[in-house]
Order: sequence, then structure tokens, then C-alpha cells
Amino acid sequence: MKKALLICLSLIPFLATAQVPFQNLKINPQRIQNRLLELSKFGELPNGGIGRVAYSKADLEGRAYFIGLMKKAGLDVSIDFAGNIIGRRKGKNPNLKPIGFGSHIDSVPNGGNYDGPVGSISGLELIETLNENKIVTEHPLELIIFANEEGGTVGSGAMIGKITPAALKSVSQSGLTIADGIRAIGGNPDSLSKVVRKKGDLIAFIELHIEQGGILMTENQQIGIVEGIVGIEHWDATIEGTPNHAGTTPMNIRRDALLAASRLIIALNEVVTSHEGRQVGTVGKLVVEPGAYNVIPGKVVLGVEIRDLSYDKIWMLFREFESKASQIAKASETTITFAQSGVPVIPALTAKPIQDKIIGAAKSLGLSYRYMQSGAGHDSQEIAQIAPVGMIFIPSVGGISHSPKEFSKGVDIGNGATVLLQTLLAIDREK
Amino acid sequence: MKKALLICLSLIPFLATAQVPFQNLKINPQRIQNRLLELSKFGELPNGGIGRVAYSKADLEGRAYFIGLMKKAGLDVSIDFAGNIIGRRKGKNPNLKPIGFGSHIDSVPNGGNYDGPVGSISGLELIETLNENKIVTEHPLELIIFANEEGGTVGSGAMIGKITPAALKSVSQSGLTIADGIRAIGGNPDSLSKVVRKKGDLIAFIELHIEQGGILMTENQQIGIVEGIVGIEHWDATIEGTPNHAGTTPMNIRRDALLAASRLIIALNEVVTSHEGRQVGTVGKLVVEPGAYNVIPGKVVLGVEIRDLSYDKIWMLFREFESKASQIAKASETTITFAQSGVPVIPALTAKPIQDKIIGAAKSLGLSYRYMQSGAGHDSQEIAQIAPVGMIFIPSVGGISHSPKEFSKGVDIGNGATVLLQTLLAIDREK
Repeated sequence: MKKALLICLSLIPFLATAQVPFQNLKINPQRIQNRLLELSKFGELPNGGIGRVAYSKADLEGRAYFIGLMKKAGLDVSIDFAGNIIGRRKGKNPNLKPIGFGSHIDSVPNGGNYDGPVGSISGLELIETLNENKIVTEHPLELIIFANEEGGTVGSGAMIGKITPAALKSVSQSGLTIADGIRAIGGNPDSLSKVVRKKGDLIAFIELHIEQGGILMTENQQIGIVEGIVGIEHWDATIEGTPNHAGTTPMNIRRDALLAASRLIIALNEVVTSHEGRQVGTVGKLVVEPGAYNVIPGKVVLGVEIRDLSYDKIWMLFREFESKASQIAKASETTITFAQSGVPVIPALTAKPIQDKIIGAAKSLGLSYRYMQSGAGHDSQEIAQIAPVGMIFIPSVGGISHSPKEFSKGVDIGNGATVLLQTLLAIDREK
Repeated sequence: MKKALLICLSLIPFLATAQVPFQNLKINPQRIQNRLLELSKFGELPNGGIGRVAYSKADLEGRAYFIGLMKKAGLDVSIDFAGNIIGRRKGKNPNLKPIGFGSHIDSVPNGGNYDGPVGSISGLELIETLNENKIVTEHPLELIIFANEEGGTVGSGAMIGKITPAALKSVSQSGLTIADGIRAIGGNPDSLSKVVRKKGDLIAFIELHIEQGGILMTENQQIGIVEGIVGIEHWDATIEGTPNHAGTTPMNIRRDALLAASRLIIALNEVVTSHEGRQVGTVGKLVVEPGAYNVIPGKVVLGVEIRDLSYDKIWMLFREFESKASQIAKASETTITFAQSGVPVIPALTAKPIQDKIIGAAKSLGLSYRYMQSGAGHDSQEIAQIAPVGMIFIPSVGGISHSPKEFSKGVDIGNGATVLLQTLLAIDREK
């Protein structure tokens, strides 16, 4: 009896016929806010921040809460072998491939409640709005809540087959290995090959996310159309001079590694800012040896990072920087050597047709917008390898993220959710 | 019988009448080399360096060896309450105040065998040369081997009354407190007031020392006439910007503390090198926070040092640097604050008349010479407060000191010892 009732309820959308016009659909911003608040209880920290690292107790509880909501919204929920939560909603045409959308709900150790949850809860809101307006899309829909985004886009990485046996053995923030973490959330690390999607398995994937930067807020824009997610390269630069007595060594015979390093830091800034574009270059770490008031620095090791949407441009900038470094080394009589560090992140471009639909949605809603790139990594970066992706950014107050101070306004989240909905419907209705 | 013989021997110089002319006096360079070698056995390290820190067993043994040589040379040897070894030789005129000369024989923990011993052993050589040539000076002579020079010019500091009760409690490199160390070498820390000399107690004080820098060697000069020993000021500069995501924060809205710090380091170099003179300015230490490839530095603390013979010039340079720092802070939207660190070292000028006599000696010996300042601290710096001082530098190979690689050539040491002798005699004969 009870079962029969549930089946009946889940059939309501398919039975409905009266639909409001596409452009007039309204999501419920208050419901999004309520759910953000409810989700924030899982892993809430005394400082107001969120500690819901993947595979932790808080993550398990948050996932259970979210799965409950997905089921209540009539989605057919499953957990894949990587631990990704997938909620399916049928479309009118069973021969069409699904449209995917979603984000993640895990956090960094002392993070906030917006990076991930905004896109996840808005994705659910989209489903509920379709339900309430009795809309059945042409394509099937998949709301995907990726597992362990913050620990290295593990869930989305599994979907494109890039999780290595070594990565499975590495220890996550939860204290569990990635493999044991995947088991803890209902996956199976031994069956990850079954999770891999092929090109064409998804018609598109759309992710709504907070900007995690200050551009939209500074420029007072409501919607960011992400053109791509930047690639990243790291190098260690070692500058070697001669450590010597800072009192007895005249200025003109010094080989001061820190003075040369200073010119190098400025040179990177000059190279990066002298070209058109949104590339960024940073020296974020630096160690001086021996490191005393009265000893001329003999050695400096510093960390260089360059990010851009174009991998070629990253290397073009580095080559120009390297050439300036040679001049600095010569002039300062130091040696400067570079070594690549870590694994490069390859840039991921979003699909132009989806960008256009996001702009169409923003325009129809009277929202201001701008193109931008994502300087941070996202699950969409992985999915871009198997499907056309789109990313919608909304403003982060103060440009702050990965912090208890992370915050996005309700009105901005509501706008983003509506744009997500309209974009999805525009993709769905395209012939 | 034995005692009577010793008395007779010690009277020989006073009985002698036939003297070689002043300018023809020759010290014995081989004897200096032999004694440098013998002294190096006390505290010899496996790497060839010297570990003869003040108050250590090696220091006690080295002092005993040296006292033996002083006594053999007929000096009236005593240890003052600060542990300084003082060897007196009578002059013709008992109403005249003594001329002092000497250096130290303690070393830094992993040091060499020239910083200190060169001046000490050459001072002794001077006495022996006078003995051998049957010369009695007008003034009494005092060969002073200062205690614990490397631990903060403790012995010479005591002679000018500047050793505080707090300093006595501090722990020296030997592991003993300064007070216990003074006791270990035969002094008495409770009677330091009796060690204090008044202005006029010494006619002059002359110190021969290795340069500890590379100027004489680079310029191929044999003798350095020290114009003064530089003063030193230290400041900590704190640069505060905004730590932020290195991927999502555009170049033009960054407040990068390390980029501002780099401009500051270059500004110090520009200020110091844009003025005539031998002032030096160094940033020797720097710490970046948080210190990661992907975070724009939010805070940098760096250590600034300026040295010069003129204390006013040190502050003039600092004020100019500070003004550039304000411009940098404004342009980079960071804050830059300075705090003085440690105890300033006040510059000590040598006496012009003694400089002239050193030049006279160098000229008469056909030695090349140049004026210079001492960038390092010395006992003479302290003694300058109570007597006219002179300092003679000889070349350090490679400009290296405080290192097992510290080395000065025998010929240069011999030149220095002869100049020391001639300078002393010139002072002595002056009416």
C-alpha cells in the first residue's frame, strides 16, 4: 500500500501536462538557504567554519542527509564505485543521453559552507522546480555529487579513469587511504574501471560554483561565465651566490642570492603582467640560507607558479621569465636554476555553445555577467575530457574561500540556481 | 742560584747599548709561523679548523702555552680580573704611560687559526725582536691578550667597564656562564670594576689583525690602515599584504607581501650604493607566510642591517630607505613597519696620528697599502673609548674568516708584524 503510493507520487511529473513558460520558471531561494543551513550542521566547527573532509564521519552524515533529499525529490539515487552520488530523473526520450549537473559537498579541513554545497543544493533545487512545475525534460537528467573534490577531484577523476593505484594508497585528510575512504562511502576501489565514462555518455555537464575570487564582487557583476579552468605549472628556482660576512664584504664584490632572488620575483611579475590576458604568476614561498642579519645570503630557493587557460602560454611566459633570469644571474654573478615541481595541471576549456546558453539565461533574467576563467580546480575540469562542460560562477564576498569566512549572498545563489536551470533547459530543447 | 740567573737574564735588554737602526729591525717570520702551528694544536678539529672557544679546555691550554712564551720572552705576566693576559715590559722612563698592543687567541666554534693569533703572536714577536736587538723603549709596553673576544669582546669590554651583571649570567659557547668562564681562566667576575682603565692610562693601543674580507687580496695591497671599526644597526621589517588564492586572484588586485619585500630589498641596495663611501647594507634573513606555491604571500618579516663608520650616516641611510619603503608600501597597498632589533654597535674611529705612523712604516718598508674600515668588530673598538687606537690589517686569502678555510700567507703576516713593530717604535719616540 505504502509502496504503491510512492510509485504514484513519483509518476506525478510524467502525468502532468500544464507547464509554465520556460522563462518564467522560478526556483525557491529560501529553500536553498534552508538546506545550506541544514547541511552546515554536519562538520560545523566552533569558529563557524566547516570541517567536512571527504570520508570523515561528517562527510558520511552530510551525504546521508543529501541522499535523503534527493530521494524525496523523486530521483533514482545510486552510489557509483568511486563513491559519487548519482540521482537520475527520466526524460521524455529514452534514446537520448543524459545531461549532467552538480558539484560536491565535501570541504577543506577548516573551510566554509559554499564551495561545493551551492552547486549541489542548487542542482537539487532545479529538480524540485521541475517537479513543482510538472516539467519533464527531453533528455534524462543526472544530478552528480562528486566524492572527495577537495582531496584532488577523486570522484570526477575516477569518471575519466585517471585515479592510479598509487593515488588509492595515499592518505586523505580523513586519515583513511583514498581506497579505504571510497569503501567507507559505499564505493569499491577495486572496481573503478566500471565508473569510467566514455565521450558522448553525457550530452553536457554544468556546474554552478562560487567564484572563490574577488572579480565579480569588485566589478559588481552577478554571473561569471567560465571560459575554462586554468592549467598550473610549478617550478623551484635555486639561486646560488656566496655567503659572506655582511660587515667586511664591500657592496660591489657581493654575490647576494637574496638580492638576485628579489629581482627574479619582480621579473616574474613583470613578465606575467606585460602580456594581455588573465594569466597569473606567483612566488609564494622562499627560503634563505644561512639566514642571519650579518651574513650575505648564499642560497635562496623559491617556488614559482604560473596559471593560464593555455598551456602553451604558461610555457611561453616561463621561457620569457627564464630568459630574464639568465640576465639577472649574469648581472648578479649568481647561478639560477629551475626544476619543475609536482604534477602539471592541464587547462580545461568549457564548451562555447554552453557559454552562449549561460549568457542567454543571464540576459533573459536581466543579470549582469562577464566572461572569466577559473583559477581554481573543479570537478568540471575532469569531466571536460569526456563531455562539453559549462561553469557558472556567482560572487564570493571579499573573494574569500577555503575559510570559515567564505560567504555568498542568498540573492546571488538564487540567481545562479535560476541560470543553471535555464541553461539546462536550453540545452535540453536544442535539436 | 736559579732565581738570580733569571734576574740577570731579564736585565740583559737594559744593560745593552749597541742598537741596530730603528728602520733596519727585522722580525723573524719563521718563528711566527712555528708558533701559529704550535698554537693551532690546542682545539684542532678533524676538518683542520680550530675549536678554541673562550673558557673551554682548549682555550685554557692555549692560554697556558702562550703565557709560557710571554714569560720566556721576559715579560712580567699577570691575569687581570676579567681574565685578560697582560705582559709588561719596562721602559726607560718610569713616569710615562705604557703603549699597549695585542689581540686575542680564542676562536669561534668552527674557526681558523689566524683571526686573533696573528696579532697575538706578532705582538710577542715584537717583544722578542726588541730583546734580540737590545732595545729598550721610552715607554713601558703592555702586550694584552684579551679574553673571550669572539663571545662579544668580553675582556676588552671589561676594561672600559661595559660588562653588565646580565651579561655575566649569559651562557658562553663553552657552556659556562661568562662569570664562571672568567673564574675558569683565573679572573674574578666580582672584581671587574678594578679592571676598568681610565682615559690616558694607555698612550696608545695597536692591533694587528687579518682583514676578514677580500679587499686587500682583490686589490693586491699588502697593508690596510683601518680608519675605524664600523657601527651596526639592525631592524626587522614587517610587510603585510593579503594572503589569497594564487589561482583566483588577478594580478592587479593582489597585495603581495613578497613582491613588496623584493622591492624593499632592492631599495636598500640602491640607497646604500647610491652614496659615496664604504657603508654596507644587507638583508640577510627573510621569512614568508604562509609560504605555499598557491598562496599569495600575506606577510614577510625580513632582517635589515646597515654598517658604517659614522653613526649619523647609518641613520641618514636608514631614513632614506624608510622613505622609499613608504613609497613601496603605498604603491603595493601593503603596510611596512620597522622595529630596531638587538643592541646597536657604536662606530669606533682610530687615531689619525697612529694611522700616519702605520703609513710611514709601510712606506719605509716598501709595502703597498690602502685606507679601509673594519666591517667586523674587534677589541680595539672597545679600547678606542679610553685610548687612541690603531689597527693594521693584512690580507685574508679569499676574504674568508670564521672558517677552517681562513688563511693568511706567512709573508703577509711577517709584513704586518714588522709594521706593528715600526709603528710602536714611532709612537714611542714621539716627543
